[in-house]
Amino acid sequence: MQGNYIAVWINNDFFDECLEVVDQRMLPFEYHTQYLTTAEEVAKAIKNRTVSGAGVIKSIALFGVYIAALEVEGDFEKLQEKVLLIKEAVPPILNFSCKIDIMVDHLRSSSDVISDARRYSIEFSDNEAQESQKIAQHGCKIIEDILKNSGKTKINILTHSSVGWLSMLDDGSALAPIYEAKKRGIDVHVWVDETRPLNEGASLSAWELAQDGIEYTIISDGTSGYLMQKGEIDMVIVGADSVNANGVINTTGTYLKALAANDNNIPFYVATPTSTFDFATKDISIELRSEDEAHYMKGVDENKTIRKVRITPENSDVIYYAFDITPQRLITGFITQSGIYEGNFDRIQEIFKKSNE
Amino acid sequence: MQGNYIAVWINNDFFDECLEVVDQRMLPFEYHTQYLTTAEEVAKAIKNRTVSGAGVIKSIALFGVYIAALEVEGDFEKLQEKVLLIKEAVPPILNFSCKIDIMVDHLRSSSDVISDARRYSIEFSDNEAQESQKIAQHGCKIIEDILKNSGKTKINILTHSSVGWLSMLDDGSALAPIYEAKKRGIDVHVWVDETRPLNEGASLSAWELAQDGIEYTIISDGTSGYLMQKGEIDMVIVGADSVNANGVINTTGTYLKALAANDNNIPFYVATPTSTFDFATKDISIELRSEDEAHYMKGVDENKTIRKVRITPENSDVIYYAFDITPQRLITGFITQSGIYEGNFDRIQEIFKKSNE
Repeated sequence: MQGNYIAVWINNDFFDECLEVVDQRMLPFEYHTQYLTTAEEVAKAIKNRTVSGAGVIKSIALFGVYIAALEVEGDFEKLQEKVLLIKEAVPPILNFSCKIDIMVDHLRSSSDVISDARRYSIEFSDNEAQESQKIAQHGCKIIEDILKNSGKTKINILTHSSVGWLSMLDDGSALAPIYEAKKRGIDVHVWVDETRPLNEGASLSAWELAQDGIEYTIISDGTSGYLMQKGEIDMVIVGADSVNANGVINTTGTYLKALAANDNNIPFYVATPTSTFDFATKDISIELRSEDEAHYMKGVDENKTIRKVRITPENSDVIYYAFDITPQRLITGFITQSGIYEGNFDRIQEIFKKSNE
Repeated sequence: MQGNYIAVWINNDFFDECLEVVDQRMLPFEYHTQYLTTAEEVAKAIKNRTVSGAGVIKSIALFGVYIAALEVEGDFEKLQEKVLLIKEAVPPILNFSCKIDIMVDHLRSSSDVISDARRYSIEFSDNEAQESQKIAQHGCKIIEDILKNSGKTKINILTHSSVGWLSMLDDGSALAPIYEAKKRGIDVHVWVDETRPLNEGASLSAWELAQDGIEYTIISDGTSGYLMQKGEIDMVIVGADSVNANGVINTTGTYLKALAANDNNIPFYVATPTSTFDFATKDISIELRSEDEAHYMKGVDENKTIRKVRITPENSDVIYYAFDITPQRLITGFITQSGIYEGNFDRIQEIFKKSNE
């Protein structure tokens, strides 16, 4: 397998460097990568879900500025046009336009746009990877504590959506503490929510966990409540696309898991870098995705050929909201690169304010 | 279309009568019926989900005794053997063995086993249909009340699993009040939970509602929480396979919907005949279904050919519990043939005790 468990990297096999990304659309059935050599291709890869997941999209967007710089041979004026394509492709919920703007601003006064764009994008992605490592460490401490307090020898963790290295960088967010637990020899089993309609759990998370030899079981999105009632889930870890004043914005279905965890006194953690914190924002519109993503499902037939089948009646209406909102009262804590925070937004803001003073 | 909106009927086109059932496995893609002429075929149709749904299974089981009586030409000794096949096929959660035994006991002293079996099974199914009609009336009253109190002109109802005429008899249970509302000219829109992994909602409920021209939208099982937060769901109606001391046993995922309804102050109703009430039972084991039902998904390809595709990684583990348990504290009320009961099991038992005195 290529890529050494990363989802995006700079490929220098060719005369000009290009971006190489894991094509998530073919997983878990086939592992393919794709070369991205222009800003257009970068934008398309984000839009058509060749890559998905908050962290990876952010990295690819900044790497994309480097690719665009190569494309326009370092011409800053032309670069600005290309960057618009990338900015437009990044989902607004990620609140990442300003970060791209900051990078472009830095390049404005650069004497070597190409090499500065390269350095800047690599720095960003290295920083994301380091944050992932810290999330892994802090989160694993919680896993150890929960295991110790439970008196059990094995921990069962529920996760929703895809939140490992395919979606973030390095070990990802929600899966990072689990990878770390495995490294430390903890007996860990993961309940993987299928995560309809895109099946990020059943396809991406399950595939990732299998690569690392971590024990997991895929369940339909309605199953976790019963498993919690039976005492078969010890903790929940999810990621976040954004955390705003209303709560955690994450893949649709997260809120129901938080309700069930709360009803069964099971710790519910959100693993995410603090850069997703955006408490000043309140009202956001949740992205409506293409209806076809809910009408059709991808799988392999008896010949292992990938096929898309329609699972709904002809002429039926479907609706697919990409995210839902989990209010802070249901969140036990945040696992971030800078430590653990209780699910109390006022307190988190106070801590941040103090550390900035 | 055959069958006039019923899921099972006696077909007398042939020399010997047989049972004709709608083959639910082909829906919503193709409408087919199947003839059942022996007890073996009846048992198989229940086991392989040609038919599914509490009410229909019960009816088919009793009709099956009649078919078995025809098969053995009224020989009571031979009939008893055949009945064992049917009893074994009926899911234990339905607690229906005793009802079959009562029918067989009646036939023991009968001078005309065949015609008595016929009469008995028709009586049962007619009674179920009448109960469905009463559930429709009582439930529609609640819909009218909720609509009136909301001040809106349109009601949005969430349902989970398949609970119309394909699964029960006549108008079904949870869908019955909705059909009645449509008849009374109420502007009703149904949010149909996909209901993974068998997709009963996206296939059966959606197809049924379309036949009757009722407006509906299919949503993934994780979506209803966000819709409730947005105020787009006015009430929830689900069915029940059984109601015991622990709560309502219904298709997996029901409990999560009840939690979300409760968190958003949305009325959560269980539409079910009182014959499902079994408050004396406490511990039950929830049926584990075949893993293949979760690994594979049925749909139609671009040529409208029905295909089964595998949606999970090879060698992955899945688990599929057929039901979950919704505790009484989350239930606003039961819509039954004998009226509406609050979700308080002690009070329901008192009322039943009094009415039996």
